[in-house]
Formats: sequence, C-alpha cells, structure tokens
Amino acid sequence: MQSIKVIKIGGNVVDNSGKLQQFLRDFSSLGGPKVLVHGGGKVATAISKGLGIEAQMIGGRRVTDAETLRIVTMVYAGLINKNIVAALQGEGCNALGLCGADGGLIRSKKRAVTAEGVDYGFVGDPVDFNLATATALIDGGLVPIVAPITYDPENGTLLNTNADTVAQTVAVGLAQKYPVELVYCFEKRGVLRDVEDDNSVISNIDPALYEQLKADGIVADGMLPKLENAFKAINSGVKSVVICAAECLTQPGYGGTTLSR
Amino acid sequence: MQSIKVIKIGGNVVDNSGKLQQFLRDFSSLGGPKVLVHGGGKVATAISKGLGIEAQMIGGRRVTDAETLRIVTMVYAGLINKNIVAALQGEGCNALGLCGADGGLIRSKKRAVTAEGVDYGFVGDPVDFNLATATALIDGGLVPIVAPITYDPENGTLLNTNADTVAQTVAVGLAQKYPVELVYCFEKRGVLRDVEDDNSVISNIDPALYEQLKADGIVADGMLPKLENAFKAINSGVKSVVICAAECLTQPGYGGTTLSR
Repeated sequence: MQSIKVIKIGGNVVDNSGKLQQFLRDFSSLGGPKVLVHGGGKVATAISKGLGIEAQMIGGRRVTDAETLRIVTMVYAGLINKNIVAALQGEGCNALGLCGADGGLIRSKKRAVTAEGVDYGFVGDPVDFNLATATALIDGGLVPIVAPITYDPENGTLLNTNADTVAQTVAVGLAQKYPVELVYCFEKRGVLRDVEDDNSVISNIDPALYEQLKADGIVADGMLPKLENAFKAINSGVKSVVICAAECLTQPGYGGTTLSR
Repeated sequence: MQSIKVIKIGGNVVDNSGKLQQFLRDFSSLGGPKVLVHGGGKVATAISKGLGIEAQMIGGRRVTDAETLRIVTMVYAGLINKNIVAALQGEGCNALGLCGADGGLIRSKKRAVTAEGVDYGFVGDPVDFNLATATALIDGGLVPIVAPITYDPENGTLLNTNADTVAQTVAVGLAQKYPVELVYCFEKRGVLRDVEDDNSVISNIDPALYEQLKADGIVADGMLPKLENAFKAINSGVKSVVICAAECLTQPGYGGTTLSR
C-alpha cells in the first residue's frame, strides 16, 4: 500500500509569501496521497492589534480568550487556509481545506486550568481523529489542508490547537489504515547539535540520544514539544518521522533529522 | 434516487444567533443528503470598520477591493463557516465546510469592468462546478456547508460571490447527477404580493406571472436577482425551487413560493 505523507509547516513559512509559494510548488510536486497541516503565523496577532485586542501571554504562550478564538478561527481556518488551497489548486493539486470541526476530523478537549491556576482559555488537546472523514477525502482524490483549530462537540465550541500536535494526531490517526510518513518542516535544516551551525544537523535521534540531548541542554525550548510530538507519532504506528527545513521537501530523505523508536 | 436538498440562508439568519441556532437544529433534522449555502451577514462590515477599512459601495453593492477580499475570506469561509460546522456537528449532522476553492468546487471568472466603467473588484461569477468533489463528499456521508467565496485558478485568486448565485450553481451542478430541491430561505415567508402583508405569499410563480409581477413592480430590488437565480435553476435541471422563510424549513412544502417552468 502506498504511503501517505503528512507534512507540517509552521508560521515562519506561512508569514513569508515567497517561501510559502515555493513550498506550495514543492508540495504540489510530491507524488502519492498527502496531507498538509499548517500553523498560524503572525497575521492573527496583527489583526488582533488592528482591532484593539490585547494579546494575553502566559509563559510565552498566547492565551486564547473568546475574542482571540474568533480571530484565530478567521485567520487560520479562513484567510490562511483558503489562500493556501487556492494557490495549490492553481498548481494542479486538488487541495481541500478543513479544520478539526469539519467532518468531525479532530475532536479535542478544552485544556483544564493548571494546578498553578493557569487558564489557557479556548485551547484544545486532541482526543479523537475521524478516520472515515479522512478516508472519504483521500480516496476521493482530495488533498486535505488542515488548519490548527479543533472542536469540542460536548461544549459545541471550536478550540485553538498547537499545529505540531494536530500534525501528530493526523499522522497517528491515518496510521490506523495507511503507512504514514510524517515530516515536520521548520526554520532549521533539522535538529542541530549547535544551534548556531546549520551544518550540525543530527541525522538520527533515538530515545536514548533524545534523553542525552535533553540532559545536555542541546534540545530545549520550542524543540521539546516538537520532539515530544514526533516521538509520540513514531511510537504510535507512524512509519517514519523527519524534522527538516521547508526548502528541503523535494530532497531525498529531506536532508533532516530522522527519529527512530 | 433520493433527492438532494440544497438550502440557502442569508445574512439575516447568520447575523441572529437565536435564529441561526434554531435554523441549524431544523437543518440537522432534515433527512437525506443535503447541502447548506450561507451568506455573509454584517460581521465582515463590522470587522472592516474595526480595522479602519472603509466599505466602498457602488449602486448598493459592496466593492470588493484587496483588503475587503481578505476580510470576507476570513469572515465567510473562516468565522461563519466554521461556527456553523461546529454547531451542526454538535447537532449530530456530519457537516464539512468549504468555499469554492476547496476541491475546486466552484470556479469563477472575475467580473469585467462594466461599460459604464464600474469595477466591482474581486467579485466572481461562477463558470464551473466540480461534481467529482461534491460526489466524494456526499457519497462519503458528509454534509457540505458552502461559503460564498469562489476562485479563479487562472489568476490564482479567491473571489467574493453572491450567495444566491452560489446556491444556484451548486443546485444546477448537482442536478447533473441527482434530483435536486433548491430552497432559498430569506426574511419573508415567500414572494409577497403586498410586501407589507405576510399573508400575501404567492404560492406559485411561472414565467408568465413573473413577467407580470415585474411589470407591475411587485417584484423589485433584491427579489429580482433572487428570482433570476431561481428561474435559472429550474430551467437548468433542478427539480424544484422554493423561496420561503428560514423558520419554515421543517414545514411540509416549506409554506413558501414555488417556481415552475
């Protein structure tokens, strides 16, 4: 059975129209079934500011209040998603955009207030993936383009969700039925041993090396949740997980960091 | 073969959360395959104002400049579409939201500058409907929820499109394969002989009566394009077309105005 590629791009690509255009051209050229998960980028912050809504941050994370939820729904699932879809259609890729609510693709649960009393607001952690919806689209020759908004049917609300986690959820969900390759594209060429040296890409990380890299402080900050998601995927049936640069999508092996169980 | 219902709601329902909630409950309860096409409403205008973008109007119609296109894409295909989808999912209806770009559903052509020099901007008139995409969704048990944004693949742009025309395009396109009932829900109980009298619903209009009603000035203004779309549908293979109130969706025959060839 042919593999499905699940590719994730972050806000750094979404925010740069030249980079995005090249990425979408490369994505279109990839053979076989595929899914794109995109992040949000800075447009939501700019529009919030324009509307006079102050961004609330706790520990470097945006707090999603009701107004912010409206903005990220508009920007992520509307503006960004539909412009990506239109550009891909222009490249001959039969893209169809959706968020987690569409076809019940990704159910999530609103994150509980932490023991320290931190309330992230309308933020969701995925609990279920709808394989039937994904299959109907993929078998229909459509290429799903997934925005990082999920939904909680019990409370009837949309929820803002980390795009790396959405990509992992999609990959693990599809792995119930298909062989899946998960590719996290980000601003570096891979996980770097020296963050200042682009040629220090670590070609493979297994769980023992991951523990070592954490202990040595080589993997820290934003890389931690990305790698947690990556390991969760590889430990939950996803065939391969790679972390690489968006520019390397058409290179054999993506020239990045491969994870192994 | 079972009929497909194509239901259109306008901005007056979208703008009223109580009405919308009741409508979505009624829509969920309809048996058989169905499609919802929704209008825009006033949220886009409010957000444009909030961002300091002046709405340009020519002859009562909004002119869609580049900034306005961004706003309507966000609001129609993002905020409104995804909130409708989430609410329908909460009602047990397997809704999936899309705009005309998704799966290449509705291609359109940017409206040319008129002989009088009026440029409507990024406004599209539909030229093609993708039956394969619609079939993949409907046969997959999904209920398409269509926002009034279409796309022009030649120029790679999204285009703002009249929602009545989108509904007609969807109905005519589906009629190539399925028997289709098209229902235009609006703020009145049907086409009224006396606009002040809600009990003056004209139960049936054929082309001869339509000409008479136009000549008498009984049908005018916003009703004209709606009826043009309705007659185009019934003359292009759609089995039945009804104009009625959103509140009457679960009534037998919808209690509105039926069109006939």
